[in-house]
Amino acid sequence: MIKVVLLGAGNVAVHLAKAFEQAKNIDFVQRYSRNDDNDIYFNLETPKINNVNNLAVADVYIIAISDDSISKFSYSLSLTEGLLVHTSGSVSLKELSDKFRRGVFYPLQSFSKNIELDFNNVPVAIETEFDKDSIVLNELASSISNYVYHLNSIQREKLHIAAVFANNFSNHMFSLAKNICDENNFSFDILKPLILETANKLNYLDPKEAQTGPAARNDKKIIQKHLSHLSNKKKEIYKLISESIVESD
Amino acid sequence: MIKVVLLGAGNVAVHLAKAFEQAKNIDFVQRYSRNDDNDIYFNLETPKINNVNNLAVADVYIIAISDDSISKFSYSLSLTEGLLVHTSGSVSLKELSDKFRRGVFYPLQSFSKNIELDFNNVPVAIETEFDKDSIVLNELASSISNYVYHLNSIQREKLHIAAVFANNFSNHMFSLAKNICDENNFSFDILKPLILETANKLNYLDPKEAQTGPAARNDKKIIQKHLSHLSNKKKEIYKLISESIVESD
Repeated sequence: MIKVVLLGAGNVAVHLAKAFEQAKNIDFVQRYSRNDDNDIYFNLETPKINNVNNLAVADVYIIAISDDSISKFSYSLSLTEGLLVHTSGSVSLKELSDKFRRGVFYPLQSFSKNIELDFNNVPVAIETEFDKDSIVLNELASSISNYVYHLNSIQREKLHIAAVFANNFSNHMFSLAKNICDENNFSFDILKPLILETANKLNYLDPKEAQTGPAARNDKKIIQKHLSHLSNKKKEIYKLISESIVESD
Repeated sequence: MIKVVLLGAGNVAVHLAKAFEQAKNIDFVQRYSRNDDNDIYFNLETPKINNVNNLAVADVYIIAISDDSISKFSYSLSLTEGLLVHTSGSVSLKELSDKFRRGVFYPLQSFSKNIELDFNNVPVAIETEFDKDSIVLNELASSISNYVYHLNSIQREKLHIAAVFANNFSNHMFSLAKNICDENNFSFDILKPLILETANKLNYLDPKEAQTGPAARNDKKIIQKHLSHLSNKKKEIYKLISESIVESD
């Protein structure tokens, strides 16, 4: 059994905590949180401490806090050894204090505060400084997820950028679409089946093959017509993405 | 029973044909297609003609052909009366020949050639020139879909623009994300659960509330770091959409 201590109480932390509590083969011994946290949604049972000097002995210590605080926090720990990992997509393994064996345990999903999800379907990208730790981290990740990937820090940073396009930017497209619905007095609901199908299609089509619409057909007449209805950022975005679709063909 | 004749044999036409064949309360009397078509995927049984002068008598004639051809085709028909509708999101009702009672029957979904989908979940936006036809078209749409919307031509055009953002542009974001994965030797599969969850979240969150990521946090450090890894259109798109997310906050 791998002994785990989890440090942090944000979205990622509480989802991870719930998954560890449900996993077999994990001895989830302790949680640490400085502040009040999101526990209320998840009925967590693992003992929690508020004093970071009282950390239990464990095989793996997981820091799940905001990117900017990870490095400093790792140097502040009074532990003297162990495998210390963080859960960030955009922080290098080397930013952790070098008095530890270091690693990364990055669950790639958009976690919401109060919505439990099936962690089995959440991909986890892992990286370790030493090969022997790779085995431990792989076992830990596999105990909660069916999708474990070994990525180095450069790949993980690129993955994070890819995720910004795939998740944050696609969501902003939904947001702009909803603005247009609102401005014209019809419900955004009308677009939801289309949005779901756009995502579902990726199960059987490459996104490039799945591309449809005026820009994919290089239909300049419709593109111009649409641009004439738009202004400001929406217009700039319509123009730039259309150009990018045309170029990528 | 509403008698329907369908003209066209593209993606929208064959999906509609399949839905009409499966619907109760629809007398799907005939299909017209000039060319060979996509029938092979759908085992359609409705009689098909290749000569447009042999159209059967029907309550509704549905033109499901490419946007640019709709107007001219409607004027070429030897019919002298009837309710004539097209299936386009971006063509006005008024572009149809005025010797007919005119309407629009716009199914809002991204149809793939060879993949059958449940038409019950496909929203249909309808519009008619005359109120009495609205009843017929509403009944026709309701016989194949649970989601029928009454939109005028201006609203439908705006809906089409919104759909370009929601579907075409979000799909291009997936495409750019896949490029990044390919360039860095890890599988695009790692992003698919995140993409599905991004779409699923819209069932319980407004897209603006669901917005996460560096731009939503206005995290200039990460945004600059990401930009330094990108070039050309990907860089321009990252910059512009990030600005738009920051502004919309």
